Amino acid sequence: MTDKTNTPISVVGLGLMGTALARAFLKAGHPTTVWNRTAAKADALVAEGARLAPTIGDALGGVTIVCLTDYSAVRELLGDAGLDGATLVNLTSGDSAQARETAAWAEKHGARYLDGAIMAIPSSIGTDEAVILLSGPRPDFDLGALGTVSHLGEDPGLASLYDVAGLTMMWSVLNAWLQGTAMLKTAGVDAATYAPFARQIAAGVADWLPGYAEQIDKGSFPAEVSALETDARAMAHMVEESEALGVNAELPKLIKAMADRAIAAGHGGEQYPVLIREFERPGS
Amino acid sequence: MTDKTNTPISVVGLGLMGTALARAFLKAGHPTTVWNRTAAKADALVAEGARLAPTIGDALGGVTIVCLTDYSAVRELLGDAGLDGATLVNLTSGDSAQARETAAWAEKHGARYLDGAIMAIPSSIGTDEAVILLSGPRPDFDLGALGTVSHLGEDPGLASLYDVAGLTMMWSVLNAWLQGTAMLKTAGVDAATYAPFARQIAAGVADWLPGYAEQIDKGSFPAEVSALETDARAMAHMVEESEALGVNAELPKLIKAMADRAIAAGHGGEQYPVLIREFERPGS
Ligand SMILES: NC(=O)c1ccc[n+]([C@@H]2O[C@H](COP(=O)([O-])OP(=O)(O)OC[C@H]3O[C@@H](n4cnc5c(N)ncnc54)[C@H](OP(=O)(O)O)[C@@H]3O)[C@@H](O)[C@H]2O)c1
Ligand SMILES: NC(=O)c1ccc[n+]([C@@H]2O[C@H](COP(=O)([O-])OP(=O)(O)OC[C@H]3O[C@@H](n4cnc5c(N)ncnc54)[C@H](OP(=O)(O)O)[C@@H]3O)[C@@H](O)[C@H]2O)c1
Repeated sequence: MTDKTNTPISVVGLGLMGTALARAFLKAGHPTTVWNRTAAKADALVAEGARLAPTIGDALGGVTIVCLTDYSAVRELLGDAGLDGATLVNLTSGDSAQARETAAWAEKHGARYLDGAIMAIPSSIGTDEAVILLSGPRPDFDLGALGTVSHLGEDPGLASLYDVAGLTMMWSVLNAWLQGTAMLKTAGVDAATYAPFARQIAAGVADWLPGYAEQIDKGSFPAEVSALETDARAMAHMVEESEALGVNAELPKLIKAMADRAIAAGHGGEQYPVLIREFERPGS
Repeated sequence: MTDKTNTPISVVGLGLMGTALARAFLKAGHPTTVWNRTAAKADALVAEGARLAPTIGDALGGVTIVCLTDYSAVRELLGDAGLDGATLVNLTSGDSAQARETAAWAEKHGARYLDGAIMAIPSSIGTDEAVILLSGPRPDFDLGALGTVSHLGEDPGLASLYDVAGLTMMWSVLNAWLQGTAMLKTAGVDAATYAPFARQIAAGVADWLPGYAEQIDKGSFPAEVSALETDARAMAHMVEESEALGVNAELPKLIKAMADRAIAAGHGGEQYPVLIREFERPGS
């Protein structure tokens, strides 16, 4: 094994995030080259030991991390740069279609292309908390200097799909917690008192997911714990309680509407994960 | 301290849940009296050592657990029973208004009244997994035979409020997971492959809740991690990706709509928990 911190890295794009990425590579001991359209943003990193690439082409020698505003900036910048033989890791945020198109384009121009997504804020880069998702050809280099790095598979669209799925989970947990907090506040319970309960439920339900996933992969949803019809009665109660308390009821109503649709489609005697059928198709 | 299993318990209502409750008390060694409108449902429990109360009045001697279909059944059954001096623990499902009204009514008739909610299915009663929530006067008896029992406070409405808040969290985690599973399935990723990722995100976000709760209790939402405006851009991307993939987009749209409203109300530079303002009022 070669020393993980030996790989020469270039970071292209020194905005808030790119600067944090370059700094983490420097700290971990990688020979680090940097480039930015507005060159002055490289000054601090050069003072910390980075090499400034005089041209974008010069930055494409080793493993090149790209972190710009969006995919159109990436195509604009790299379009004339001469990609033959380059290894690109594009950590710019975008959707799965952009990732797949950019991968095809880069490969056509002779580059090895990985797409990635950063589930972290700049200040956490370089810690285990920073989750970096990669997809495309399996890398033979190590980006562990950035945080917790996972390679998800060959399809370059996977990183952005996992990213957006993870964000949906994040905001859903937060919104459910806010809904409960609003309900409990009507009874004079403060947010700090309720939060540990919400945390315990969220973590407990998270533990069910691998088991529930088996039902989806088998396409069979026996009501081992509870049938959707039974759940729907408690959902009606959740909607009514929200309305009676005068708090927002949109999240409870959406939960109930999705279940009601599955019941109307004949799945009332099956278990919750059968709702995948509703989540897989555009709603009303 | 008296032996926790010494307290004589009566269980009134021997449906699916009441039977499981009575059985758990018997197993733990409590002297257990049972009563049911349809007396034959007591037979198996009597064979296991329970005493059959000849009348409902006879069942009101010790600590009486009530578990009927709904609150109107409770009022109908107990209305003529002579409640003076009784201790009632009503584990029948209902809303916070019903719990408070029934508490006032029972106290007027001379009973000590606790309200409760059972976050469990009958087969898990008697294990740590069964969460039993109590509210009303602090109990001087121990219901630990049933599972993990928490006393939430004096307000008898609290148990049903925590219950419905917890259910909102449960279905929100499940729905967010289903949304992500549907997205990943379009790329050929099976549910079992995606589930551990969803689990990790849900559990990770759950850990933020106590800290975020402090912002709500202080009423101050500095954007330490990320401003709502920045979140909203990623939310737009989440909605667009769902639509482009042809999966359901209602949950992503609701997430975005709530944030957009808070931004329109001038909170774009603040952190996510400022959304409590939207969750506290009826939506559009
Ligand atoms: N910041 C975060 O918390 C965070 C978290 C996760 C993901 N991300 C993602 O990381 C990426 C970068 O974010 P950021 O926060 O670093 O943004 P930023 O601070 O606004 O930086 C944008 C960078 O893109 C460069 N750029 C834009 N258009 C260009 C063009 N046409 N040609 C060359 N360079 C161009 C800018 O160069 P100049 O300096 O010359 O303008 C700058 O280096 C985004 O896709 C973002 O979604 C950010
Ligand atoms: N089962 C669960 O998974 C579950 C989970 C959490 C909470 N709960 C709650 O627990 C409560 C009981 O549920 P369950 O599943 O045990 O229901 P169940 O099997 O339908 O039993 C209903 C019980 O209520 C009695 N009852 C109904 N109306 C009555 C009346 N007017 N007078 C006297 N007795 C009456 C029935 O007596 P007869 O036998 O004479 O009809 C029976 O004992 C409900 O509030 C439910 O929401 C249940």
